Amino acid sequence: MDYQTTADEFLAWLRTQIPLINHMGVKPLQYDGHSLVMAAELAPNINDKGTGFGGSLATIATLCGWSMVTLYRREQGFDNDVVIHTSELEYLSPITGDFAAHVSLPDAEALAVFDAKMAERGKGRLALEIEVRQQEKVALRLKGNYVAMEKKR
Amino acid sequence: MDYQTTADEFLAWLRTQIPLINHMGVKPLQYDGHSLVMAAELAPNINDKGTGFGGSLATIATLCGWSMVTLYRREQGFDNDVVIHTSELEYLSPITGDFAAHVSLPDAEALAVFDAKMAERGKGRLALEIEVRQQEKVALRLKGNYVAMEKKR
Repeated sequence: MDYQTTADEFLAWLRTQIPLINHMGVKPLQYDGHSLVMAAELAPNINDKGTGFGGSLATIATLCGWSMVTLYRREQGFDNDVVIHTSELEYLSPITGDFAAHVSLPDAEALAVFDAKMAERGKGRLALEIEVRQQEKVALRLKGNYVAMEKKR
Repeated sequence: MDYQTTADEFLAWLRTQIPLINHMGVKPLQYDGHSLVMAAELAPNINDKGTGFGGSLATIATLCGWSMVTLYRREQGFDNDVVIHTSELEYLSPITGDFAAHVSLPDAEALAVFDAKMAERGKGRLALEIEVRQQEKVALRLKGNYVAMEKKR
């Protein structure tokens, strides 16, 4: 399956699983097998100052990283449970228009360690850095530790 | 004005300012002038595992702390802009029912430093720890640094 079809089907599935994102103006995903962009409209995500609500930015960033891990495992043929364990967020500038979370998979060495843990223990941890940007401006940086595990039967 | 009326009017105002929270099953606030509880229903906040969506928990926690700072300043007679600057989140256990974010103001010494900065510079920082709990179980701990500042004219 080509990457865009994978991404479209993934987002359609997400919309059935996480009802909140249907109220966040999420746009079609951009996905190339290594990087993922999750964009959203400003209007449903404004705050009292007319700028991007911090909770919305944190949600889109957290979900973008979660989706990257989930898609990576699915590409490898595994349907795992993925959860976020810890995150550190730095809000750098206000958002005044539509915005997008950007994430890429880590380098091959980090992926190999993760893959080995998944194979050996059925559980592994992946650290990702997600940026929420309005065009070129970085508004939020999120460092997240995600844990994937085999689904409980 | 009694605290419950203050809290009810504050939430009614929040609903007009941050549209997303109208899709999160937020319940009436509990407020006593020193502590704030922001509770929400699980159903609109579920994820693919049928448990609480990490983005929803992060949003309610972030907003609970933000509301505490905003209410504190309003009680003192100031209508400031408040933003979150940094946060550290630790997801401790899954949520399987309705949940609530809990926050309290810091001790008198920390508040005095914050008040002095606001008076001297029109800007100050307050560190808060927010817990999201399902009954007694702590599901998420968020350490947030909030910045209050005089509104730009």
